Amino acid sequence: MTDKSAPLVGIIMGSKSDWETMKPASEILDQFEIPHECRVVSAHRTPQWMAEYAEQAEPRGLEVIIAGAGGAAHLPGMVSSQTILPVLGVPVKSRALNGLDSLLSIVQMPGGVPVGTLAIGDAGAINGALLAIRILANSRPELREKLHEFQQVQTETVMENSVLK
Amino acid sequence: MTDKSAPLVGIIMGSKSDWETMKPASEILDQFEIPHECRVVSAHRTPQWMAEYAEQAEPRGLEVIIAGAGGAAHLPGMVSSQTILPVLGVPVKSRALNGLDSLLSIVQMPGGVPVGTLAIGDAGAINGALLAIRILANSRPELREKLHEFQQVQTETVMENSVLK
Amino acid sequence: MTDKSAPLVGIIMGSKSDWETMKPASEILDQFEIPHECRVVSAHRTPQWMAEYAEQAEPRGLEVIIAGAGGAAHLPGMVSSQTILPVLGVPVKSRALNGLDSLLSIVQMPGGVPVGTLAIGDAGAINGALLAIRILANSRPELREKLHEFQQVQTETVMENSVLK
Amino acid sequence: MTDKSAPLVGIIMGSKSDWETMKPASEILDQFEIPHECRVVSAHRTPQWMAEYAEQAEPRGLEVIIAGAGGAAHLPGMVSSQTILPVLGVPVKSRALNGLDSLLSIVQMPGGVPVGTLAIGDAGAINGALLAIRILANSRPELREKLHEFQQVQTETVMENSVLK
Amino acid sequence: MTDKSAPLVGIIMGSKSDWETMKPASEILDQFEIPHECRVVSAHRTPQWMAEYAEQAEPRGLEVIIAGAGGAAHLPGMVSSQTILPVLGVPVKSRALNGLDSLLSIVQMPGGVPVGTLAIGDAGAINGALLAIRILANSRPELREKLHEFQQVQTETVMENSVLK
Amino acid sequence: MTDKSAPLVGIIMGSKSDWETMKPASEILDQFEIPHECRVVSAHRTPQWMAEYAEQAEPRGLEVIIAGAGGAAHLPGMVSSQTILPVLGVPVKSRALNGLDSLLSIVQMPGGVPVGTLAIGDAGAINGALLAIRILANSRPELREKLHEFQQVQTETVMENSVLK
Amino acid sequence: MTDKSAPLVGIIMGSKSDWETMKPASEILDQFEIPHECRVVSAHRTPQWMAEYAEQAEPRGLEVIIAGAGGAAHLPGMVSSQTILPVLGVPVKSRALNGLDSLLSIVQMPGGVPVGTLAIGDAGAINGALLAIRILANSRPELREKLHEFQQVQTETVMENSVLK
Amino acid sequence: MTDKSAPLVGIIMGSKSDWETMKPASEILDQFEIPHECRVVSAHRTPQWMAEYAEQAEPRGLEVIIAGAGGAAHLPGMVSSQTILPVLGVPVKSRALNGLDSLLSIVQMPGGVPVGTLAIGDAGAINGALLAIRILANSRPELREKLHEFQQVQTETVMENSVLK
Repeated sequence: MTDKSAPLVGIIMGSKSDWETMKPASEILDQFEIPHECRVVSAHRTPQWMAEYAEQAEPRGLEVIIAGAGGAAHLPGMVSSQTILPVLGVPVKSRALNGLDSLLSIVQMPGGVPVGTLAIGDAGAINGALLAIRILANSRPELREKLHEFQQVQTETVMENSVLK
Repeated sequence: MTDKSAPLVGIIMGSKSDWETMKPASEILDQFEIPHECRVVSAHRTPQWMAEYAEQAEPRGLEVIIAGAGGAAHLPGMVSSQTILPVLGVPVKSRALNGLDSLLSIVQMPGGVPVGTLAIGDAGAINGALLAIRILANSRPELREKLHEFQQVQTETVMENSVLK
Repeated sequence: MTDKSAPLVGIIMGSKSDWETMKPASEILDQFEIPHECRVVSAHRTPQWMAEYAEQAEPRGLEVIIAGAGGAAHLPGMVSSQTILPVLGVPVKSRALNGLDSLLSIVQMPGGVPVGTLAIGDAGAINGALLAIRILANSRPELREKLHEFQQVQTETVMENSVLK
Repeated sequence: MTDKSAPLVGIIMGSKSDWETMKPASEILDQFEIPHECRVVSAHRTPQWMAEYAEQAEPRGLEVIIAGAGGAAHLPGMVSSQTILPVLGVPVKSRALNGLDSLLSIVQMPGGVPVGTLAIGDAGAINGALLAIRILANSRPELREKLHEFQQVQTETVMENSVLK
Repeated sequence: MTDKSAPLVGIIMGSKSDWETMKPASEILDQFEIPHECRVVSAHRTPQWMAEYAEQAEPRGLEVIIAGAGGAAHLPGMVSSQTILPVLGVPVKSRALNGLDSLLSIVQMPGGVPVGTLAIGDAGAINGALLAIRILANSRPELREKLHEFQQVQTETVMENSVLK
Repeated sequence: MTDKSAPLVGIIMGSKSDWETMKPASEILDQFEIPHECRVVSAHRTPQWMAEYAEQAEPRGLEVIIAGAGGAAHLPGMVSSQTILPVLGVPVKSRALNGLDSLLSIVQMPGGVPVGTLAIGDAGAINGALLAIRILANSRPELREKLHEFQQVQTETVMENSVLK
Repeated sequence: MTDKSAPLVGIIMGSKSDWETMKPASEILDQFEIPHECRVVSAHRTPQWMAEYAEQAEPRGLEVIIAGAGGAAHLPGMVSSQTILPVLGVPVKSRALNGLDSLLSIVQMPGGVPVGTLAIGDAGAINGALLAIRILANSRPELREKLHEFQQVQTETVMENSVLK
Repeated sequence: MTDKSAPLVGIIMGSKSDWETMKPASEILDQFEIPHECRVVSAHRTPQWMAEYAEQAEPRGLEVIIAGAGGAAHLPGMVSSQTILPVLGVPVKSRALNGLDSLLSIVQMPGGVPVGTLAIGDAGAINGALLAIRILANSRPELREKLHEFQQVQTETVMENSVLK
């Protein structure tokens, strides 16, 4: 039903240096063959463009936004305030406080403006992508199948290598 | 397209005492007329039932699970590991550490098993419901309308009462 | 030189409930006879208006903005990103984490977008006002006089009541 | 009275990468000649098998389970909820938060489901093994002897090298 | 096999004010009919007696020691260093830091001297007792039965009251 | 109106080792052609000189003081208590606690003595300089121009390199 | 040898509101009949007087200074930098962060300027006084006697009330 | 009056690996020509010897004990509980929590048993030695002279290298 070439997920991040953390999100989406785009959109350095990006996301056909940011991480919350799409936040590990500041800045949103927050760092990026796929899968049975397979493989991989001693 | 009487969202929580925190999630869903159910499902005291609940959620037609828990909060992550539905976690404020333990136990999931985590306490419960609605709205245009209205009203309420002095 | 009736300082806050914390800022400005305005401007619920407020502040003649916010406190940083006026941030004490989240969300700004952050709670509001006055005083000698007097009185008050035993 | 070859202690961990941390537990058990097994059992990636492992532990003759996990560490608590054996938890140092998340996720269990938690990292693994041996020793006088000797040697080692200057 | 009247578990705590937190441990042991004793033994104010208590515990027939303490909580670790019995530590909620200091002072023991640490506050006291019973049950089949029943009842209590809406 | 060669901003720091962190502040001021001075002034090792520095700053024509310090960072607060100039504090990353101690020691000032605190580390130093320039710009229209340009360039740099994939 | 009427210990604190916390220090000194004085001396509001107080302490015959302060607590460290007497710091519980800020601001002094820091709150005030007495006792044998008695009584009080059940 | 060769200060630490942190304390004492001893005395591995060391310290002529320890650091508090000499505690940086556990385990002592706590790591070791010297100096005028000189040199060193730009 969806045009395979139009992006369904937007992966955005506050700075080019966040790409290292966020790249695994893109790789997971590739693995599930989800068309998506990856952009640097800074809450603090490109506030107007961020507003446009957030407002255009729904009419452009995006269904989920994954936003990574570090330190006083305002990107996920500010995007959420300007769209009605589900927004997922990935706290990027910060230099001084190891991402605790990023986590709290993203997760402690006031009632009314939700951000689904994932773990600090690349585990969070991977899970941001997986949660996006779970969301998309609600109306795409073939994705549900793939998710069941993914989980199956994950389980088998652990079990086949379980015995250490 | 969906049967209005079958629940689309499952709100679960680790203990009856979490109901005070989680009730606003149910109220938001009511406000948007989303059929949902509210259950106590304890990761630690009813692990088998939790597994069943998680596994049955998808075949039963649920599209999102909102799980609230406090302290060493294992419910959201354990449910996520046994379903492919999007799972949203609400950290309940704990007695000694004010919910910091709940937050970290829910959000710091390893890559592979996503939980979209909201704020500690009732703001998190409200946002869990709103994020669930945004997810449902992806395939329900009338919900998108309602979300735009909700955001509009929210904006207007602030602006009408903005001048303090 | 400045028109006494036009506000020089804008005190803004994310929610009406922050007024209790921020009111002392207004009282200090009154004490120094600084024309100012107090507004609820929410980063999350009125993002567009926030952008307008920030952009209009300089042409409207404001010289300092004091912004109070709690939890995932994005107001000070987002305002700073859309003005070249000095922006001072006051972390409002939050329910679960006592304002540690507010503090980190405000102070940990990336290089390029400064927010001068004060203490959590009303001490921060008082000092936000005093720092604003110090800033205004750079080009207003009569304010410098008043600040010296204020400091003098503060010193004397302590010294007159110093002996406890 | 116990069959020396059947394992008395199960050392399990959430991921193969935890083995580096948990290996010293196995080495201590070897040093005390305690038959034991070491397995990767993931709460999140192999939830069903974890349930089986926990339920079979008692009938299989295990007397203590040592479970290591990092981040949102659910393994020790979930195993404890499905066995009546003593479960000891070892928080594995996590990348972003240095194991504080692991510690809180393991130790802050609700009343009813106990996990005896040890220190973060390999000191915790060593002590998990020693606590397991103390538990086994309650009904094995020869182990009590060995524990007294171990403590004696430990004391002497410090005292012989005490003088630094 | 054990003399029912001689205590099997010693519940000790650093100060009389800790009794409120530790009492539920005694109540759980009563519920399981485990003979036990409750004493104030202060690491800091009665160090010699603490040493005697620790050393006499094994010859006196105790099989587990549960030690509760707050702040710079040294009791569990110091007792563990002077016995080979399993020692369980309960961090008592402290006034300024809510028991985070108690927790870290108890759990972060160096390799060689184990303390099985439970949650901060009365949940920890309850679980200290339950973990002690699990330990005792290793050589007492009737206790294992009771533990299975306890877990069963716990599960049923949740399930019977699960439906909230 | 100001003598271009006399320093308008004083950058001070508690120790020579803080220079690495604070140097970017000086570079930003150079970029905006703001005359300034850089000094080691230690609250703890040169308390009298610190007092003199603080008291002489205003008569010497400084308009802003930027003070960087780490650990129990007393320099910004103590300077603020002895001047009526705006004082900006930069928490330097400390060895054990990564600058959390520096941050709290600087930002948690009591009502009456304001310090505008920036982020931990060099982002804070950069922003200290930019906030100083915003303050100076209030009475220097040409600086306002430069600040607008700076913000423009910053925005463009992000937007030109936004597309990652 | 000492003039009983001249104060040997100076108890100072940053604000009159700290007196509630610091009073027990004075009571302990009274109990040991140590002449002492209690003063409000604010690092931030009376910096010059603080300098004088610190510099005059040694010539005036004080042998120990106990300084209590909260939040960004600079008093103990600044006094230590201006005297060669032993300075003891008592972190006063702060409103938002419960004294963690006070503790770190006092204890994390750079090498060269020592402050012997006690616990947060009145336990710290009591121990500040006891540590001062231990210091004075080095050259006053009669105080050593009293300290031994104090410790003896403390031990007996615990032991007489040890049996709870 | 004191025999120059008998140690006046005992530097003890929980483990040989703490020597790297504590060595600067010994170097400072050497610089001031204070006879002292350095010993590994472990609260957990040599509890009896620790008790003896603490009890013998006063009769042996020691006047101050400096105790360094990491993690669940019980050495300073346990020594303080068994002597009436002033005890100074140095928190050694721990692997997982960077010494925050060490700090809280040492500083948060209950009223009645004082430990004067210094900064985490070698700054704390240096200051432990300097505080010991300030204590000794109370009855040794020549040490007071040296301390004034030390402070003077420290001040001059900063001032001579103050100008950075």
